[in-house]
Formats: sequence, C-alpha cells, structure tokens
Amino acid sequence: MTSTAAILIIGNEILSGRTQDVNIQYLAKRLGEMGIRLNQARVIPDETSDIISSVRELAASHTYVFTTGGIGFTHDDRTAASMAEAFGVSIEEHPQALRLLQDYYGDALNEARRRMALIPVGATLIDNPISKAPAFQIQNVFVLAGVPSVMQGMFESLVGRLTGGKPIQFAAVSCSLPEGVIADGLALLQDRHPEVDIGSYPYFKLGVLGVSLVMRGVDEDSIASATKDVSEMIRSLGGEPVIE
Amino acid sequence: MTSTAAILIIGNEILSGRTQDVNIQYLAKRLGEMGIRLNQARVIPDETSDIISSVRELAASHTYVFTTGGIGFTHDDRTAASMAEAFGVSIEEHPQALRLLQDYYGDALNEARRRMALIPVGATLIDNPISKAPAFQIQNVFVLAGVPSVMQGMFESLVGRLTGGKPIQFAAVSCSLPEGVIADGLALLQDRHPEVDIGSYPYFKLGVLGVSLVMRGVDEDSIASATKDVSEMIRSLGGEPVIE
Repeated sequence: MTSTAAILIIGNEILSGRTQDVNIQYLAKRLGEMGIRLNQARVIPDETSDIISSVRELAASHTYVFTTGGIGFTHDDRTAASMAEAFGVSIEEHPQALRLLQDYYGDALNEARRRMALIPVGATLIDNPISKAPAFQIQNVFVLAGVPSVMQGMFESLVGRLTGGKPIQFAAVSCSLPEGVIADGLALLQDRHPEVDIGSYPYFKLGVLGVSLVMRGVDEDSIASATKDVSEMIRSLGGEPVIE
Repeated sequence: MTSTAAILIIGNEILSGRTQDVNIQYLAKRLGEMGIRLNQARVIPDETSDIISSVRELAASHTYVFTTGGIGFTHDDRTAASMAEAFGVSIEEHPQALRLLQDYYGDALNEARRRMALIPVGATLIDNPISKAPAFQIQNVFVLAGVPSVMQGMFESLVGRLTGGKPIQFAAVSCSLPEGVIADGLALLQDRHPEVDIGSYPYFKLGVLGVSLVMRGVDEDSIASATKDVSEMIRSLGGEPVIE
C-alpha cells in the first residue's frame, strides 16, 4: 500500500503574505522522489487550537504528517506545546536535547534557549545539522522548523524513518496549440493510459497561450508510451511537441 | 465583525512539487490590504471528493472562500462540476458565459471550449479580463483560474463584492542579536501591546543568524508604539535595530 503524507505549515507570516512559502515545494518534490503520495498541504496560523485540530485530523488520515514552523522558544512559538496537547501527553525537558543545547551554546545557554529542550513525552528527536536545536517526531508526525534551510536539513536527517515506494516520475510535453484544440484527444489518451495521470496546464506568458501536458506515474514504460501518444496527437493536429 | 477567508488551491501540479504556488501569497497580501483575515490556505488534488469535502468545510467556517485551479475544460478539470455537487445544484450552460465565449472565439468555439460556459445553477459570473472565459461565484465561494496572471485579473474583478475592514498593517525591525537574547524581553513587550501581533522570525543566511521582528495590526499608532519599544529593547541589549 502506498504511503501517504500531509504537510502542515504553521505560519502567520505565510498567511499575512509577507513571506512566500517554499517548504511545500521542497517537501513535495522529496516525497515524490521517495514514492510517498502527498495528499494535502495546509497553512494555518500560529494558534494552539488551529494546530491541535489540524494535526489530529491530518495524522488520523495520512501515513505521515510533516509540520513546519513555530518550534522556537519565543512567545509566538506554540507548536511543541500544541503537539503535546494534541496527543494527550505532557511536555518535558528531554535529556538528550538538553545535552545538544549545552554542547552548542555552552555558557550562553540561558533560560529562553533551554526551552528548546522541551519536547512532548514519548517523542523521538530529529537531528538538526544546521543550528543544532533538534526537531522531533511524535507518533506519525514530524515536527520541523520553518526556516527553509533548517527544515531541509532536518528532513534529510529523518528520511531513513520513512517507508516509500516506487518514485513518482514525470514527463512533460508542451506546445503552442490551445487547450481547446487538444482537449478531446487528450481525454481519449487519458482513457488509453489509466496508469498514467495526464495533467493539462495552460500557460499565458507575454500574450502567448500554450499548454504543458504532464504525464505522472510510477512506471517508466507507461509514461514513455503515453508521452509518445501525446506527442503524436500534437503533431496530427498541426502542432510541434516540445519535450520539457 | 471582521470578515474571514480561506484559500483552496486545487492543484496536482503543486502537490507534485513541479510548480511553485504563488497564488496563496498574492491573495494573502490583497486580503490583508482589504482588512479580511486569512485563516487557512489548503492545497488539495484535482479530485472530486477532495474538492467537495474541502469546499463544504471551508465555506461553512469562513466569510469567503477563494479557490484556484481546475476550471478549464480538459479531462482533469473537475472544479466546476464538484462545486455544483458540493452545493447540491446542477451544472448548466450559462447564457451570458456562452455569449462571452462566442464573442471571443467566433468560429473557433468548438465543443470542448463551449464546456467553459458550464456553470453551477445559481452562480454569478466573475469577469476574466485576461482570457475572457469567466470565473464564477457560488454562495460565498469564488472559483478562480489557477494560472497566476488570470487568477489575479479575476480577483481584481470581484473585489467590489467583498466586505473588508481596516487594512492589516505591518512594521518590521531586524537585528543580528540571536532570538535567545531577546525572547524574554519580547514576551513582555507582547504583553504590553496586546493589540499588536508580534512575530519573531529567525533567519539563517550565509552562516549568519539574525531575527526579524514583525509587528502586525490594524492600528497604526499601536504598531508605531510597539516598534519603538522593540527597537529600544534591541538597543538596550547591545544590538542595532534595522527598520525593514
């Protein structure tokens, strides 16, 4: 059975429009490479009640959940405490996390920084190769930082814990025929290649309309066969298929 | 009472990691400027059941929902039919939408393109200044295209239908003090300025750690006062506040 995943972005800064999220795309690509199907990504505010209700819902309906953001130690970081509450456990200083912080900060380990060692009881640590303060896993939820470089380092530390499948692969063909000309032929090709997911993405750049046709699946031969058929259809309609 | 909003991105291409979403940030900024509070953004696959369950849930709990993607006429465009099903209405050819398409395409209006006139019964059209095929509003849900330039044109056509409030405003101060040094003082300042939402966003660029402190709210004087206090705190701790 294919593993499934959801992403939960905990981030007022994304919902305010101040920051462009890039964590969804990074995780989406990496999960696809591992053959884990990403079914949902959700952005919510840094609010305890939102975090608790979303993580409970997503954890119950997916193999894995990846959260980003809110794991620091300032007043607006509510993720660790919310995760503990969501799973009905308390939050305690984790001895190994404390040692990591002691090694990293030495005498500069003040009370505020020490709060980064507070982890829900029963959670396991996730290594942070960038700035040392660890992330954690509680049940099927991986609780990561929001800063993209730190999040990426943490994610790469935890991939050994994930059970994937065949990598999800792509091929893409674009042409400057409008969608209106290819729509019906494309629907027939989708029926002929049920094991490939064919997506049609019109683009509109500098006043020129065109379309990208994306073949997605786990079987290389099926993708190649669908791509060949799509290219032939484009040619038969007077277009020029461009392999992306 | 403040109007609230949710965004629903209908997009396999975002969940596969092939495409970087930019619609969330555009809508988030514009809603903030209009004083509408964005409470959630969600990315789901182009699947009827996902679309129906998400739009029902979000429409019931927010003043407005904005969806993007899947409103074309290829086999993988399932948004319009799903919206009709979600609201228990049928989908029919809308006379005004058909006229718009006839004017735009003339003799090139084939059967496939004509499917763009299929709109849930009771929905009202939203003007598309870019590529003419209209979007639509059904109840409190605005159903827009996925292509960013087209989505933006549609959104700007519909803003007159929205009831906003005081624009949400920001100020930001950054410094190269680590969060660990300012965390406790910042929590006190958040308590002193309850009408301002103070966010602390560490950054880590080229090996340098720093922090951006973002003051968010609807009252300019309160933001200015909180910003002054934050800057003074940074100075008192030996840092140099930089107004962003």
